[in-house]
Amino acid sequence: MKDETVLAKGRVERIGLDSAILTHEPEGKTEVREVSEILEHTTAIKKVLDKLVHKEHGVLKTVNEIDAVGHRIVHGGEAFSSSVVVTEEVKKEIKRLFDLAPLHNPAHMLGINAVEANMGDVPQVVVFDTAFHQTMPSHAYMYAIPKIWYSKHKVRRYGFHGTSHQYVSERAARFLDRPLEELKIVSAHIGNGASCTAIQGGKSVDTSMGLTPLEGLMMGTRSGDLDPAVVTFAMGKEDLSLNEVNSMLNKHSGLQAISGLSSDMREITEAMDSGDKNAKLAFDMYTYRLRKFIGSYAAAMNGIDVLIFTAGVGENSVILRKAVCEGLSYLGLGLDSERNINGWGIEKRISTDDSKVEVLVIPTNEEWMIARDTFELVNGLNEA
Amino acid sequence: MKDETVLAKGRVERIGLDSAILTHEPEGKTEVREVSEILEHTTAIKKVLDKLVHKEHGVLKTVNEIDAVGHRIVHGGEAFSSSVVVTEEVKKEIKRLFDLAPLHNPAHMLGINAVEANMGDVPQVVVFDTAFHQTMPSHAYMYAIPKIWYSKHKVRRYGFHGTSHQYVSERAARFLDRPLEELKIVSAHIGNGASCTAIQGGKSVDTSMGLTPLEGLMMGTRSGDLDPAVVTFAMGKEDLSLNEVNSMLNKHSGLQAISGLSSDMREITEAMDSGDKNAKLAFDMYTYRLRKFIGSYAAAMNGIDVLIFTAGVGENSVILRKAVCEGLSYLGLGLDSERNINGWGIEKRISTDDSKVEVLVIPTNEEWMIARDTFELVNGLNEA
Repeated sequence: MKDETVLAKGRVERIGLDSAILTHEPEGKTEVREVSEILEHTTAIKKVLDKLVHKEHGVLKTVNEIDAVGHRIVHGGEAFSSSVVVTEEVKKEIKRLFDLAPLHNPAHMLGINAVEANMGDVPQVVVFDTAFHQTMPSHAYMYAIPKIWYSKHKVRRYGFHGTSHQYVSERAARFLDRPLEELKIVSAHIGNGASCTAIQGGKSVDTSMGLTPLEGLMMGTRSGDLDPAVVTFAMGKEDLSLNEVNSMLNKHSGLQAISGLSSDMREITEAMDSGDKNAKLAFDMYTYRLRKFIGSYAAAMNGIDVLIFTAGVGENSVILRKAVCEGLSYLGLGLDSERNINGWGIEKRISTDDSKVEVLVIPTNEEWMIARDTFELVNGLNEA
Repeated sequence: MKDETVLAKGRVERIGLDSAILTHEPEGKTEVREVSEILEHTTAIKKVLDKLVHKEHGVLKTVNEIDAVGHRIVHGGEAFSSSVVVTEEVKKEIKRLFDLAPLHNPAHMLGINAVEANMGDVPQVVVFDTAFHQTMPSHAYMYAIPKIWYSKHKVRRYGFHGTSHQYVSERAARFLDRPLEELKIVSAHIGNGASCTAIQGGKSVDTSMGLTPLEGLMMGTRSGDLDPAVVTFAMGKEDLSLNEVNSMLNKHSGLQAISGLSSDMREITEAMDSGDKNAKLAFDMYTYRLRKFIGSYAAAMNGIDVLIFTAGVGENSVILRKAVCEGLSYLGLGLDSERNINGWGIEKRISTDDSKVEVLVIPTNEEWMIARDTFELVNGLNEA
C-alpha cells in the first residue's frame, strides 16, 4: 500500500456452473485462465487464494501475508455513510438491506462469508456504492410520494457509483491543484451503467441514480428516466408481471433497445458512422440526456467549475464527449478538439485554456479506493 | 372576436349528481349560480345555452348567434399537431386516443356530442394540449425502452399544457418586442398541474410532462419524476394494483404528500412561514426540481434568453419565483425584488435591467387561444 503497487488482479465468473472461469493476472507474470466446475463462492475464494500463493503464478509466499480484505457493496442504505470494518452487527445491517438491493447485497454477503470460511478472522472492510451520496440534502433525495414509503420502507434516492464519483472528484482537485472544498464539480461516470453526480465542496449534493441504479441517465441496457405511468401502462397493456417489467427496463432497454444492435457505445458509434439511423437516434438520446443532467446540476449548484468524464465510455469515447460539450458553450465551456483526441488512459484536461469550465478525463479506480479505505480502517483497528 | 371581448364565462360541475352546480358569469351583469339535478352532458349544455340567451342574465339574443364552439382536448397523440374542425374522422381519431388518456378524452367526446345534440351542425373546433409539442425532435420524445412500445402502442413523450406554453411564449416575444424566432425560452406553467417547456424559435423542443401528465415537475398531488423502479417496488411491497399505484402517484403525492397538509402552494408557504418543517421540505423539493428543469433546458437549447412564469402559482407566488431564480445567477439571471412583488394579474418583467435572462410573468389565457384557433379555422371553412 505504501507505494500503491498492484500485485495481481483477477476474477471468477459463472460460479455455479461446471464451466466457471477463473482469471488471475499477476503483475509482471503470465496471465492464468482456468475453466473448471466451481459451484459456490467458498470454493471460488479458495481457488483465488491458491493462485495468489502459487509457486509459479503467485505474488505472495503465504496467505498470511494478506492483512485485510476489502469488499464493494452496492447498497448501504442510510445505515452507512462511509466504509466500515465487518462485524456481526454490520452483517445484520447488510442483510436488512437485502430488500433494497435484492440482486446485489445477498451476493455480497456470500463473498464476505466465503472469505471468512477461507481466512478465518482476517479483518474485512465493506465499501458502499451509496455511502458518498449520504451527504445529499433531503430536498434532493426525497421522492414526492406519501411519506410512509420513506418512513417504513426507506424509499428515497440513494445513488450509486459513489466510490468512483468520490475518487475522480478528489483526483480532479489534485490535478487542477485547487482545493476540493471550493469546487463545483459534475462527474459523469459513463460505463455500461451510467450516473452523474453534483459535487459541491467535495460532497455529493445530488446524483442521477435513485432507489435503484435504474433511474437517471440512459444506459447500455437500462431505460433511465421515464414517465412513471409508462410502467403501469406497459403492465396493463401487455399483462406484464413485476419481474417482467423490471427485466425489460433493466436488461432490454437503453442503447440496446433503441439501436436494436448493441448496448456497447463503440458498436453504436461505428454503426452511426455507417449511416445507421437507429444507432444515431440512440447516440443522440444518450448524449442529449447526459447534457441535460449536466445542465440541471449546474442549476442545482448555481454554477459549475469542473466537468469530469470517467469510466469505460466516459474515458474512451471522443465523440461522446464532443457531442455532450458542444451544447454547453452557454456555460462558457470550450472543448479543445486536439486535447479531446490525444492521450489515452491518463488524467487530462480537454477544455480550452480560456474555458470557464475545466473539462477533465479522469480514469476511475474503484479498486484503489476500496484498498485505501480498507488499509486506513484496518490500520485504525491495529492502533486502537 | 374583433375586439377580443369576453361576453360570459361559466362552468357546470358535478354532472351526474342531483346537486350539480351551474355557474354563469355574464360580463357586466350579476353572476348566476344554480344547484340542480344534471345527470348528463347534453342537459348541461342545454342549460348553459339557456343562460346565454336568458332575458335577464343572457348575453345573446338567440343561440343562432353562436357561429362556432371550441373544445379543449387533452390528448391529440401524434395525429394532431394543430387545432382542427371536428369531422367524423376527427371524432374517430379522438376515440382511438382513449387508450392514451382514459380519464380525459372520453369526457371530451361527451362534450362534443352534447354540443352536437343541442346545436346541430354548428362548426366545432378541437384544440389539443399536446399539439404544440409535436415539434419536439425524436431524441427528446423517445423513451429508451424496446421500440415495440412506440411502434405498436405509441408510447412516447407527448407533453401537455401546450396551449398555455404557446400563448405565453408568443406574448413574451410581443412584450419584449423581439422576434419569437430568435428567442430561447423556458416557460414554467405552474398551477396545480405543472410543466416546463423549452421553446426555441417559437417551437417546443422539449417538455417535462410525458406520455401522461404525471412525469416531470413535482405538482400539487402528483409525484413527477421518480425512479421507475419505485413503481414496481411499491406494488410488490404492499401488493398494490395498477389502479392503486396510479391513484397514489397522481392523486396522493406531490406537495400534498410531503407537506401532509395541502396541495395548494399558498397553504404550503403560509405553513412554512409559521415554521412547519414538512411544508418547508415540500417547498424546497418543488422549487429545487423546477430550478433543475430550467437548468436542463438551458443545456438542451445551449442557452436561455427568457424565463416565463405562468398559471396560478407561477403568476401569483412571489416567494416561489424568488426561490427558483436565486439559484440561477450563474446564467447571468438577476431578479429584481421590487418588480417581483409589485403588479398583479399583468404581464411584467421581474428581472433586473442588466440581467442576461429576461424573467417575465405572463398570465396565461388558454380560453383565448381556443377562441382564436376556433375563429381562424371556422373563418377558413367559410372562405373555402
